[in-house]
Amino acid sequence: MTVELICVGTELLLGNIVNTNAAYLAEQCALLGLSMYYQSVVGDNPDRLKELLVTAKERSDLVILCGGLGPTQDDLTKETAAEVMGRRLVLDLRARDEIDAYFRQRGSAITENNWKQAMVPQGSIVLYNANGTAPGIILEGENVCLILLPGPPGELIPMFKAQVFPYLHRLQPEIICSKMVKLCGVGESRVETEILDLIEGQSNPTIATYAKTAEVHLRITAKAASEAEALSLIAPMEAELCRRFGSAIYTDEEAVTLEEAIYQLLKKHQLTLATAESCTGGLLSGRLVNVPGISSYFKEGYVTYSNEAKEKLLGVSHQTLEMFGAVSKETAAEMASGCMKAAGAELGIGITGVAGPDGGTKEKPVGLVYIGCCYQGKCSVKEFLFHGNRSRVRESSVAQALTLLRAVILDEAGV
Amino acid sequence: MTVELICVGTELLLGNIVNTNAAYLAEQCALLGLSMYYQSVVGDNPDRLKELLVTAKERSDLVILCGGLGPTQDDLTKETAAEVMGRRLVLDLRARDEIDAYFRQRGSAITENNWKQAMVPQGSIVLYNANGTAPGIILEGENVCLILLPGPPGELIPMFKAQVFPYLHRLQPEIICSKMVKLCGVGESRVETEILDLIEGQSNPTIATYAKTAEVHLRITAKAASEAEALSLIAPMEAELCRRFGSAIYTDEEAVTLEEAIYQLLKKHQLTLATAESCTGGLLSGRLVNVPGISSYFKEGYVTYSNEAKEKLLGVSHQTLEMFGAVSKETAAEMASGCMKAAGAELGIGITGVAGPDGGTKEKPVGLVYIGCCYQGKCSVKEFLFHGNRSRVRESSVAQALTLLRAVILDEAGV
Repeated sequence: MTVELICVGTELLLGNIVNTNAAYLAEQCALLGLSMYYQSVVGDNPDRLKELLVTAKERSDLVILCGGLGPTQDDLTKETAAEVMGRRLVLDLRARDEIDAYFRQRGSAITENNWKQAMVPQGSIVLYNANGTAPGIILEGENVCLILLPGPPGELIPMFKAQVFPYLHRLQPEIICSKMVKLCGVGESRVETEILDLIEGQSNPTIATYAKTAEVHLRITAKAASEAEALSLIAPMEAELCRRFGSAIYTDEEAVTLEEAIYQLLKKHQLTLATAESCTGGLLSGRLVNVPGISSYFKEGYVTYSNEAKEKLLGVSHQTLEMFGAVSKETAAEMASGCMKAAGAELGIGITGVAGPDGGTKEKPVGLVYIGCCYQGKCSVKEFLFHGNRSRVRESSVAQALTLLRAVILDEAGV
Repeated sequence: MTVELICVGTELLLGNIVNTNAAYLAEQCALLGLSMYYQSVVGDNPDRLKELLVTAKERSDLVILCGGLGPTQDDLTKETAAEVMGRRLVLDLRARDEIDAYFRQRGSAITENNWKQAMVPQGSIVLYNANGTAPGIILEGENVCLILLPGPPGELIPMFKAQVFPYLHRLQPEIICSKMVKLCGVGESRVETEILDLIEGQSNPTIATYAKTAEVHLRITAKAASEAEALSLIAPMEAELCRRFGSAIYTDEEAVTLEEAIYQLLKKHQLTLATAESCTGGLLSGRLVNVPGISSYFKEGYVTYSNEAKEKLLGVSHQTLEMFGAVSKETAAEMASGCMKAAGAELGIGITGVAGPDGGTKEKPVGLVYIGCCYQGKCSVKEFLFHGNRSRVRESSVAQALTLLRAVILDEAGV
């Protein structure tokens, strides 16, 4: 069953707001096993909306429209949908009473244009709105079904959950399940090359690849008559990915982030951690603290952007800074071991680099970053040359620091 | 001149990501005075993309496509655009060299599919990508111009700013000028209420409001035959906003962020700063270090997520932690003065709070955050109750800490 989405609103075309409704509805439709091939955004313009709607109703089984159900004269989604489906607008008594009650409860006066919201296309299913005045509408035609929803997410989401999801679920006999496999330390194109045969041969389940900063996520999705059957289609594919990527896979849970996976490792091995950051300036510790409860393992973080602070707080030697410079393998190693010792932690990680835009030289260009990770007496340092602007260099540094930290725990703590 | 936007990516149709590119590009096009009537999203499917593109090129002067320029065989935007415009794909030598250099610098192997990114439609303007491997493309036809951009925002935004915006600006005979006025420390609805009369009476210039975390940005936009004329339309409106909002305005420059404005103040008054962070875990120092050159003023940052670290590194007294708790006005004040003293800085800022999801009590609910700011002997502490999830609470805390820091510098350093 195919579905398409039309979002109506000039504020979207002007970029005043981000279209979070589209992401929400797309995710829900995917979950319901509906195939979404198109999303469109159009302004509060009945001619262009009509043109889109005529196209959509020819090519899709289901069209979800959101926005344009308000009381103003700009709001014409309902009128346009009724026209395209050849229906008259009639007064819905319950909608009228609810609008009346809504204003009474708030002690505000009803303006004349509010009554327009009680008019619905003849023969439609009315979705009453507990969080606003515009009812939603389901309009079943011979070959297409239109679903009209209010634009504000605070009205759309509860209405979708309570009324539209169950309605659509009944139309779809098939269940869709998916599983996310997340990798770090391997590039997107390497991953793609290694699973090319799986992608080429895929039908059910399918694999989708998502590139993140220093991570690649793979989503395996299966359709089946029952959840158990869908999961049994996913399992061999997941096993195959595990076989191919091994320890590069840090989780098979959708909600688990790389910092969360590291937290789990710290907890499992009862290891404590300290950080020392120069160019990233606290972004690494900031990401670690994304994880509630990490305070038991993450002891202290030092932001030592200046040489003075590196010496004073981390005990980086003056000679090292003089001889090799602040951005060097040696300084990264001393930062890592320095914060580890200062905090009395088992693990220490140090980051130093040239984030740019200034400060680069021929020997040490912008993007050059050293990341050191110490586990007790042993220290590994990696050199990176990141591209992009200051914020990209810093984000990449944080992601690679987490990847290195995870590798050190896996290697040294011997998992 | 009309423009439409086509975003390519199955991850958008599945709701895996929110389409922030659409909002960014729509805002930029509005700024350029281009009329956007349609936005579409289509998956990595060449037939459906082709169908959309054929429609788009008939009805719009300019079509911006984003996504689908990657190295994988799913990525077919360039191939489809070339076909629709009747162009062959040819090898671009500079693109090839840049891809080669990109991988060499990273020390990773180039897989065969990466070379595909060096192929461009014949006769196109190539937009080289400083932040990734996929070049963007401008494809000028007789009645339509296609602009192809990479999907990742970290690549798309810098490419748009540096290369596409200037290109589009030259196509537009009318000059559009805009000025951004950025406020902190006042809420969106207060701002909206105070400028209601200006918004209602507006025609040229216009004002658009953008709500950010703890900030409100107002964009004044004017159209005119020359830049000087447009600026002379903007000036009285800007003066009026300055009159109404006074020192809540931290900049009237588009590129200046709140942390950058604070850096300017630190520099002007030759003040040094230290930070001590609990629930934000380094995000405040991370934001300060967004500003190149801040190392001269930002001396040290401490991430003291545990009580032990608060005592050891900042000298927060054991009694204070026992009597008032880690999340208290008193602890925030001692964290601020503690980091100030430890670093020998003139200013110290301390943040402590309950970021959630756990750890909230009736007296100290999730979202309760104390922010202290010391300037030499004097300390101000503010209490906040933020709404939303862990990451929203932490982001709001950082934004309010910067706002407080700015207010303290303005008050105490006597600007």
